[in-house]
Amino acid sequence: MILDRVNMPDDLKQLSINELNTLADEIRELIIKKVNTTGGHLGPNLGIVEATIAMHYVFNCPKDKIVFDVSHQCYPHKILTGRKEGFTNPEKYNIFTGYTAPEESACDLFKVGHTSTSVSLAAGVAKARDLAGRDENVLALIGDGSLSGGEAYEGLNNAAVLNSNIIIVINDNDMSIAENAGGLYQNLKLLRDTKGKAELNFFKSLGFEYYYEDKGNDIQAMVKAFKKVKDTNKPTVLHIKTLKGCGLKCAETNKEAYHWILPGTLDKVSNTPAGENYNTITTDFILKKAKEDKNIIAISPATPGAYGFTKEFREKLGKQYTDTGIAEEHAVAYASALAKQGAKPVLAVMSSFIQRTYDQLSQDLCLNKSPVTLLIHWGAISGADCTHLGTFDIPLISNIPNMVYLAPTCKEEYLRMLEWSLEQNEHPVGIRVPFGNFISTGIKDGTDYSKLNKFKITQSGEKIAIIGAGNFYHLGLKVSKAVEQRFGFKPTVINPLFLTGVDEDMLDNLKNRHEIVITLEDGCLSGGFGEKISRYYGNSDMKVLNFGADKEFTDRVPVNELYQRYHLNTDLILDDIQKIIKAKV
Amino acid sequence: MILDRVNMPDDLKQLSINELNTLADEIRELIIKKVNTTGGHLGPNLGIVEATIAMHYVFNCPKDKIVFDVSHQCYPHKILTGRKEGFTNPEKYNIFTGYTAPEESACDLFKVGHTSTSVSLAAGVAKARDLAGRDENVLALIGDGSLSGGEAYEGLNNAAVLNSNIIIVINDNDMSIAENAGGLYQNLKLLRDTKGKAELNFFKSLGFEYYYEDKGNDIQAMVKAFKKVKDTNKPTVLHIKTLKGCGLKCAETNKEAYHWILPGTLDKVSNTPAGENYNTITTDFILKKAKEDKNIIAISPATPGAYGFTKEFREKLGKQYTDTGIAEEHAVAYASALAKQGAKPVLAVMSSFIQRTYDQLSQDLCLNKSPVTLLIHWGAISGADCTHLGTFDIPLISNIPNMVYLAPTCKEEYLRMLEWSLEQNEHPVGIRVPFGNFISTGIKDGTDYSKLNKFKITQSGEKIAIIGAGNFYHLGLKVSKAVEQRFGFKPTVINPLFLTGVDEDMLDNLKNRHEIVITLEDGCLSGGFGEKISRYYGNSDMKVLNFGADKEFTDRVPVNELYQRYHLNTDLILDDIQKIIKAKV
Repeated sequence: MILDRVNMPDDLKQLSINELNTLADEIRELIIKKVNTTGGHLGPNLGIVEATIAMHYVFNCPKDKIVFDVSHQCYPHKILTGRKEGFTNPEKYNIFTGYTAPEESACDLFKVGHTSTSVSLAAGVAKARDLAGRDENVLALIGDGSLSGGEAYEGLNNAAVLNSNIIIVINDNDMSIAENAGGLYQNLKLLRDTKGKAELNFFKSLGFEYYYEDKGNDIQAMVKAFKKVKDTNKPTVLHIKTLKGCGLKCAETNKEAYHWILPGTLDKVSNTPAGENYNTITTDFILKKAKEDKNIIAISPATPGAYGFTKEFREKLGKQYTDTGIAEEHAVAYASALAKQGAKPVLAVMSSFIQRTYDQLSQDLCLNKSPVTLLIHWGAISGADCTHLGTFDIPLISNIPNMVYLAPTCKEEYLRMLEWSLEQNEHPVGIRVPFGNFISTGIKDGTDYSKLNKFKITQSGEKIAIIGAGNFYHLGLKVSKAVEQRFGFKPTVINPLFLTGVDEDMLDNLKNRHEIVITLEDGCLSGGFGEKISRYYGNSDMKVLNFGADKEFTDRVPVNELYQRYHLNTDLILDDIQKIIKAKV
Repeated sequence: MILDRVNMPDDLKQLSINELNTLADEIRELIIKKVNTTGGHLGPNLGIVEATIAMHYVFNCPKDKIVFDVSHQCYPHKILTGRKEGFTNPEKYNIFTGYTAPEESACDLFKVGHTSTSVSLAAGVAKARDLAGRDENVLALIGDGSLSGGEAYEGLNNAAVLNSNIIIVINDNDMSIAENAGGLYQNLKLLRDTKGKAELNFFKSLGFEYYYEDKGNDIQAMVKAFKKVKDTNKPTVLHIKTLKGCGLKCAETNKEAYHWILPGTLDKVSNTPAGENYNTITTDFILKKAKEDKNIIAISPATPGAYGFTKEFREKLGKQYTDTGIAEEHAVAYASALAKQGAKPVLAVMSSFIQRTYDQLSQDLCLNKSPVTLLIHWGAISGADCTHLGTFDIPLISNIPNMVYLAPTCKEEYLRMLEWSLEQNEHPVGIRVPFGNFISTGIKDGTDYSKLNKFKITQSGEKIAIIGAGNFYHLGLKVSKAVEQRFGFKPTVINPLFLTGVDEDMLDNLKNRHEIVITLEDGCLSGGFGEKISRYYGNSDMKVLNFGADKEFTDRVPVNELYQRYHLNTDLILDDIQKIIKAKV
């Protein structure tokens, strides 16, 4: 293998173009095999193999500095910068993260997993270089899909006036995760169609020197292209056309399905989802409602697949569906305006990505009390990498005035909350879509959620009250059983339903027959739900124990290890309870 | 007065162009007089008088819908839409807000006070219209300064593909609050210089139909311009050139100084600031440090005036200063990268505007542990309007992992924190710049803030411990004196210094001689600092009372009324303490 002779970027410089081409084939094969084993980003990495080889052939990392946007496309870079064993040796498949990570290599500048940040970061890197009086090249490698994000534009607008070397490589494969959305993409198409010659040029309008390379998957062409821009002293855009999924037929043909894959995807004939789940009941619900009411509209900021907004679903909705592209801020403001004008928007966002919209949730949405339905997906403690944690949405959302943030514990509650949210006209409503096992109680929920912050006692007991929010309601039930077994009395169990306030009457009543309240939440404790209960009981004799995640970025820590760390299992919870009981005796 | 005949937009349609011109003079005079009495946005409103009259002459509000960006330029609109008495009658100067407000008029669509939101909001309004099958015009009026914000770009990118009527009016006065920053502004200049004829056109590149009007302060020209775009069925940009401060010499000449003015500004010869304050000590500190170290760099996202980053200061810093334009997200990512590469960035942002950066604080900054110094200004409970509250920065910032958020209580602590933050290389550091009276103790602070979450006992006492954070440390001292007077014992007083964690050893030790801990914070309780103390003491006998703001948007409520509402004065705090003491007896 040629790769045997390549450990670091410098080794590339000894190879012929033919050898580099062979190397590309080898890298491509390794990526396909590895990703099909571990899961991960497939299409974006297959598309960028040649450009990455050429980039490292022309530039000198780590002296020259490359910032990868969202780093969905950093696998070839990892292979070429001292980390190939993470791809050649199946036993080491998991030793490196799926994203750039400075602790792994001096060639990685930042931990990155959210989109549209690379240009801003590269601008800072370039400015630091200028202040220090050095002269290395600074590059940002950003996909066309990431260009719709506001942070990317803010970065471009500022990078354009840096007045020194900064090279923005636009990796244009004509796809976001799903199709691109937005006016910019017409301009990218025009530029591709004219091989970069069109006068109307988004990048030039911002002041960049602009180069186009049509053959983004041709190493020789890319070497030439990179040489042209190397050591420029002006803010420069190099726009390259690549093929997403390049070299793997299915990934070239069905770009959305093979953007990110689960382990074993390539071995299967089809990927039929198994039965009912929270995604299917959501899309069924929306389709039914949208047929009845033309003012219903579903919105996704470029991640429809994550919540089952399939191509078929999108096509059925037609004009009643908007993909905003990667543009969460716009998505929230747009939804707010739609609601204010009588439409019924349902905006689905991942917990980790709703982070981009605090100000829009506050100002555009909640200050204006627009009745938007916000579905927050993947909000949970998990073994995810540090850039995709779903533990911060409760602190983020629940402390914003006027917001109603609901935590269903099963299918029936979830559907009732959806229904109620669409019926009412008073509140911005977030629903934390249950994460984990699909649970159906079979008991129809008829709750009127307009009575805000009304918790539900699902088991009347004594001494201890267990408030289990959302996903962790079921943990609450288990704790209850364990309490009964170990201590010999039946505790009270409460499903709070609401995360944005406390049921003061109920909490006051609990004082009568209870001495300890425990709260369980599937997210970060700091700023979260349980602290509101602690504050409420601060002036009373009630003891309160809050269980949830610590304030920390965890990185691919197995979820059971996290549960252990945070005392989120019955034994450890009971031990903590026992300490209080002992202290009191 | 012509204005006597104008109450609502329809009345304009009866007037001749000459009468409309006279009306413009009348409106201009009213605005100058009113703003010089109450304070407010002067330059932006003077610049938009003629365009507003023409807009209401051509369109039919409230059927046609206009979204004002940031609504710094909505005074003429307010005068023409049923609210002129707020400008003609000095006794009613304060009955209307300085921003658009739907509760005041059907012609106002949203409460808006943060920039760059209008295009997204208008896109939602237009889409709701399309879903409902109506056909009114939808306009967004946005200043050139606001175009640098990512949300504006996300909105433009999406509005461009709406495939129906939406009219974006670009009010180009060639100024943000200070000078514009960014590549886009070269394109706006090119478009102005060529009267809109240049091929290279940012808006066209996004797919908009584009019109230019050079005479934005000429009613007749503007009527023509608006008529041209009215009832368009395509996403359309109307780019107009206006003069900021138009009609008031000083405001035309010194656009930054007269963007927003204090009451009486026009009556004074000069506005020399009176002595030392937190702004002057900050700028003195930065200038001194920047001279010693060329890697020091100050950054402001378009609001330099708010923290005393005067023109002189900016010029002295030269390359060691970046104004990012209105682009807080970029500012945070840029600062993070600068710090990661060895520079020493000091980024100053208003409490209310840091809201736009939660995800950048989390991902770009804290996940990467970049040693940025973040100065958060105007973080305090205040009588501000609902769009500029400074009560949410503690919940926002303090629950992000790896962040160190400091709350100085006086000049000496503040300067030491600044010094320490620039010396260290481990932590992203936020400093909540004290708000209110300038306090200098004269006692040099030599604290090593690397020992995180070490609170300081400033008065040793018994029974009650008062933790007064930042601005409210001084309230804590007052409460201490009152406790001594009313209850006859000396309580403990603590300056926590840190808002991002608790001093567990100290809190444990307090259990020995104390029964009640009270916390005081100048911000929202929900998700804030005090709740962390409540959570910590949850399993103990310690009573905890958290004092701070409720989770609510307040709107120009006098601060003393808010203090009363939140029990933030010594009498009410003592009453609350007394309730617990009684309950215990």
